[in-house]
Amino acid sequence: MSRRRVALLRERMRHLELDAFIVSSLPCIRYLTGFSGTSGLCVVRKRDAFFLTDSRYALQSKTEVKGYKRIIVSNGLYEELARHKLLRGCGAVGFDSNTVTYTQYRTLRKLVHEGSFVPTNDIVESIALIKENEEVDLIRAAVRISDLVFDDVIRSLKPGVTELDIAAEICYLHKKYGAEKDAFEPIVASGERGSLPHARATGKRIRNGELVTLDFGCTVRGYNSDITRTVAVGKATAQARKIYNVVLNAQSDAINAAKAGMWAKDLDAVARGRITREGYGKYFNHSLGHGLGIQVHERPRVSSLSKEKLTARSVITIEPGVYIPGMGGVRIEDDVLLTAGGCEVLNTAPKEFMIV
Amino acid sequence: MSRRRVALLRERMRHLELDAFIVSSLPCIRYLTGFSGTSGLCVVRKRDAFFLTDSRYALQSKTEVKGYKRIIVSNGLYEELARHKLLRGCGAVGFDSNTVTYTQYRTLRKLVHEGSFVPTNDIVESIALIKENEEVDLIRAAVRISDLVFDDVIRSLKPGVTELDIAAEICYLHKKYGAEKDAFEPIVASGERGSLPHARATGKRIRNGELVTLDFGCTVRGYNSDITRTVAVGKATAQARKIYNVVLNAQSDAINAAKAGMWAKDLDAVARGRITREGYGKYFNHSLGHGLGIQVHERPRVSSLSKEKLTARSVITIEPGVYIPGMGGVRIEDDVLLTAGGCEVLNTAPKEFMIV
Repeated sequence: MSRRRVALLRERMRHLELDAFIVSSLPCIRYLTGFSGTSGLCVVRKRDAFFLTDSRYALQSKTEVKGYKRIIVSNGLYEELARHKLLRGCGAVGFDSNTVTYTQYRTLRKLVHEGSFVPTNDIVESIALIKENEEVDLIRAAVRISDLVFDDVIRSLKPGVTELDIAAEICYLHKKYGAEKDAFEPIVASGERGSLPHARATGKRIRNGELVTLDFGCTVRGYNSDITRTVAVGKATAQARKIYNVVLNAQSDAINAAKAGMWAKDLDAVARGRITREGYGKYFNHSLGHGLGIQVHERPRVSSLSKEKLTARSVITIEPGVYIPGMGGVRIEDDVLLTAGGCEVLNTAPKEFMIV
Repeated sequence: MSRRRVALLRERMRHLELDAFIVSSLPCIRYLTGFSGTSGLCVVRKRDAFFLTDSRYALQSKTEVKGYKRIIVSNGLYEELARHKLLRGCGAVGFDSNTVTYTQYRTLRKLVHEGSFVPTNDIVESIALIKENEEVDLIRAAVRISDLVFDDVIRSLKPGVTELDIAAEICYLHKKYGAEKDAFEPIVASGERGSLPHARATGKRIRNGELVTLDFGCTVRGYNSDITRTVAVGKATAQARKIYNVVLNAQSDAINAAKAGMWAKDLDAVARGRITREGYGKYFNHSLGHGLGIQVHERPRVSSLSKEKLTARSVITIEPGVYIPGMGGVRIEDDVLLTAGGCEVLNTAPKEFMIV
């Protein structure tokens, strides 16, 4: 149990006049309890806290979860929450309306006959937004592994190998360097496929003269990295070099501008403005970035539609891209730690235009 | 678009008197549309159907999704569903209450001013339960890859290598053999850690004389495999051999008993009965198995609490285990295709007790 984190949650509960809070998302449960399994539920009350999981995790949770009353269930987690009367005597009970399903909500309403259920958003997420030193260290560790993997994997990038070959190597190396898992399925997009921002690796062979975009990340003790680089194989056209420079300059501009206190949408506008001025605005069709930590995509949203300010000790990605249908794409992504006066770029993988 | 599958969905909609159905889970969306991305929503009406995704998937969805009116959104999927008035003129609108969150439900209720929303369970899942030939072929392909990976990876199992080394190799080989991804994070549990049924691979080194449980699977065009084997490294105690035989016999009994038409809980009881008679009942603390297909865990539930009958052309796992705290564990899992008269075991990886 992280006493500090639970104390911060209770502070928010007091502010919202909640007697209890149901923590339902697995990353938030891990953040509060240390539990790393795939099935669990947490109930934090004013003076005590409960953790529920099923029998597969009886032993594991005993080791990982301290400071909670542990309950090993044989039925559904929400049914057991009700059966054990964990909300007895509670008035207002908060829950996370972005992860609790309609069925789970109805189960609570049906089986718990006292108290009222209060939908909330981002309560634990807003605590996890501001990273502790130990959390930043774990993100650094994950970023370092992904940087090492990039250095290794570009040696394998040559005509004839498939996108899946490269993805296989990325996944292999993440674990060999000690990551617990990939943060997400690696994106390996070569040639025309580079114009699909979220192209999964396929059996397509990489050809001489293609751009290849690699987007991957790993998880270290629950904390994630997320890096993108685009490199040319064998040779590069003038158009490829041109687009690369546009994206790199947009990314530099955003890194130079990023600091706590500014609106996230203004940071998005810095990169988007540069790309638009260079004539490629309509080809940058996604957000500039996103928060990173216990989830690969977390707060803050860093897009033109964001309504948040950036905060010190948050980690965000800065990842502009240009995608030209039929030609290909370029994206460059770093993870940065926001500070009062600016930001620290966590990645060290090279960003100059590279022909491998 | 699979016309057959959408026709079956419309048949169920008629039966439930629904004018429209919102498909929210990504595996179900892929099943109905072919879309393999990570963000999408589907609305099937009586005579037409819509598919929504965001700009990252504009090009990809154009290739993958046929027979649907495609809408590329820049806001939330549920907000855009409302904005485009896709439910105009519809009375009863079904949605999947197990995947739609409370927030999404409230968004629909707030923004859509006509029709009534009807929570449903497992509508698309109950169609996907009965596999088409092409689907069985894809599961076979995924199972074959995992069998090959098992044959390869046991050669690397030796004292001194870490669990993560083995997991890294499993992930690497899945992709090298052409799988699109791992079905789930491989479980590699050695020695005492084998008594944790869901142990994630760690940096722990494998030691001479330990049992090692490997549980992994991969995905081929959206269809999954799931295999478990336990092997001994270097040597084995009499207790390890004894437990192995108990589990293997329980698995054989279940395979011999499995057929369409029987209650899933009766199949669970076959294996559980054998293990209990041998004196290890309390150490088999999870379900016998689960359905397998577009999801790693899908219908039918194969446990003592299941209320379903097994159906022909379903694929299930049969995976009894015995886990002794402080000593270790054994689990043996195959994927089987149910038929009227019995079942076909899809895996070919060896099951005799193996010392590597």
